[in-house]
Amino acid sequence: MDLGKLAEDVRAETSLFFTERDAGRILAAALTSEDIWRIIDLADVPVMVLCSALRAMERAGWLNFSRGRVALTPAGQELVREAGIAPALELHCGRCGGRGVELGPVARIAEKFREIAADRPEAIQDYDQGYVTEESTLYRIAFMWSRGDLAGKELLVLGDDDLVSLAAALTGAPKRVVMLDIDERLVEFVREVAGREGLRVEALRHDLREPLPEALVSAFDTFFCDPTESLRGFLAFAGRGISALKGPGAAGYMGLTRREASLAKWRAIQEELLAYGAVLTDLRDDFHDYVNWPYIESMRSWEHLPVKRVPGRDEPWYRSALIRVELVEPPAVKNVRLSGDIFTDPEAATT
Amino acid sequence: MDLGKLAEDVRAETSLFFTERDAGRILAAALTSEDIWRIIDLADVPVMVLCSALRAMERAGWLNFSRGRVALTPAGQELVREAGIAPALELHCGRCGGRGVELGPVARIAEKFREIAADRPEAIQDYDQGYVTEESTLYRIAFMWSRGDLAGKELLVLGDDDLVSLAAALTGAPKRVVMLDIDERLVEFVREVAGREGLRVEALRHDLREPLPEALVSAFDTFFCDPTESLRGFLAFAGRGISALKGPGAAGYMGLTRREASLAKWRAIQEELLAYGAVLTDLRDDFHDYVNWPYIESMRSWEHLPVKRVPGRDEPWYRSALIRVELVEPPAVKNVRLSGDIFTDPEAATT
Repeated sequence: MDLGKLAEDVRAETSLFFTERDAGRILAAALTSEDIWRIIDLADVPVMVLCSALRAMERAGWLNFSRGRVALTPAGQELVREAGIAPALELHCGRCGGRGVELGPVARIAEKFREIAADRPEAIQDYDQGYVTEESTLYRIAFMWSRGDLAGKELLVLGDDDLVSLAAALTGAPKRVVMLDIDERLVEFVREVAGREGLRVEALRHDLREPLPEALVSAFDTFFCDPTESLRGFLAFAGRGISALKGPGAAGYMGLTRREASLAKWRAIQEELLAYGAVLTDLRDDFHDYVNWPYIESMRSWEHLPVKRVPGRDEPWYRSALIRVELVEPPAVKNVRLSGDIFTDPEAATT
Repeated sequence: MDLGKLAEDVRAETSLFFTERDAGRILAAALTSEDIWRIIDLADVPVMVLCSALRAMERAGWLNFSRGRVALTPAGQELVREAGIAPALELHCGRCGGRGVELGPVARIAEKFREIAADRPEAIQDYDQGYVTEESTLYRIAFMWSRGDLAGKELLVLGDDDLVSLAAALTGAPKRVVMLDIDERLVEFVREVAGREGLRVEALRHDLREPLPEALVSAFDTFFCDPTESLRGFLAFAGRGISALKGPGAAGYMGLTRREASLAKWRAIQEELLAYGAVLTDLRDDFHDYVNWPYIESMRSWEHLPVKRVPGRDEPWYRSALIRVELVEPPAVKNVRLSGDIFTDPEAATT
């Protein structure tokens, strides 16, 4: 058994995208940590196929899972040495957490935003929710500001369990902020906070499977959305954002993770974004840390984990990239109704 | 005259890509600084078309260029207020310079690398040279390391005025380092330093318009190149890198700037990279700061500048993004000879 053969076996067993390099990344992560969540975080391999690969590595005699730890066996250590696999090395800047930006003027609203977010509705599985840390949201706003997409601009937030609309409005910088969410609890929460704090946020209940209301089409300078990670769902939500943009020069922000999307899926998404008339101007991986959601033991991938341990709430392992696109052509997206299940696909791990 | 009409005029005059948003970005930069180089840096609009736009804005009565400064006129200030244009805000993290990474183990070689680089051959216009700061090269190596593309890996550097091969070899982490350059001075320099310092770097003189030597095809885990910015030249060099990769899971790094490439060109490049079988995994703008080259007054864009001032050597305005791609399919690139001028196109500013 070698890395190439193992990767082939995993592909055959799962019908999922998985490369020899992915196998190497898992072993590199296992050289750095024995903890299952840290390995998931470091490996950057979708959780579902990673679980299959870990089990295949156990069968190959490279790993064992005793005492709740993931450990390399002597055979595993020899393989790693021969293959020249080095320990995974995370070099996130200690100041900005690897995001590259300063909070700048956003620092002024940080305390208030944390205070507001303390009372937020809890994430629920029905809508595939799971929100990022308050710090991640604040840095997101700073990043948008630094790219000229916030101050004086009209912003649409599609799905807002991260409370981006409130953070954006708190800065006082945007010209207009509109948020859409399917979850009545979130719409009510944003309305209530906006009313109490005197913030101008329009909060509307909307199911993104339905076409955007006509008044929101071609009406915004900037959109933000952190879509569900299925290919169809991601493209549907991103496409709604694109169709809300005024035209060339308008920008969109999306979150995309390696935890539930292979690089093959990333490529399919990128092809589509380019076809919509957009270009990628920024792609910063590990920009967003997620707060562990309360339904972790009922998520799809839980039963597949070779080591089961409920991670602490502030022990992030689910991270995602921040992607910025800008339109260089009029948007090529149709604002039509979507039917069927857009939330699950074979790589989905948390629904 | 409004922003949309001005953008239309600039497009008609130059036949270059230019949006109303680009016009807004120039004015946002002019709200932040009166210095021509700082405006070029902040605006993120290709220099050639930016020069045309500045002159059009002067004709429109929005800007004046007296006393070597770029200043908004009262009419310009009114326009900016009405259009809701906010000052450009740069929020680079003060620790990592906006790159998001720590040097980590690369810090150990920093002093030695700076010492070596002090004697490097000077950049010459013949080969469209212009090197990044030593700090940029060191962070580049750290970034590659953090992505698992350095330690234990075989690395090919295509065009090496940034001395990436020496910095990589100094860390002792890669399994193999090969550098190619057309410039005999650089090949000699790398060979001489490698010999003196006991570094294993293979340095070969090679014109990248010629096919890669067969022994280098499908032979590397990682490539690095900082190509010339013409569309054809960029794709030619990036394509050489792709064809040097072993297959799925292998990675490539490229520098790409907004100074000489519009977002329309960025999009064309991204479409091609995806078609080669790759996906973009990282795109960090302003990762690289360039040391001002000695031929600045003879570069193509100099005569077009409305304000002429030679920037100090350590006054960076030319920055570029670091792009990482990873193959998800076997590389779809032909290793064939390229003829004709691959260095110039209408957006070229420094050749």
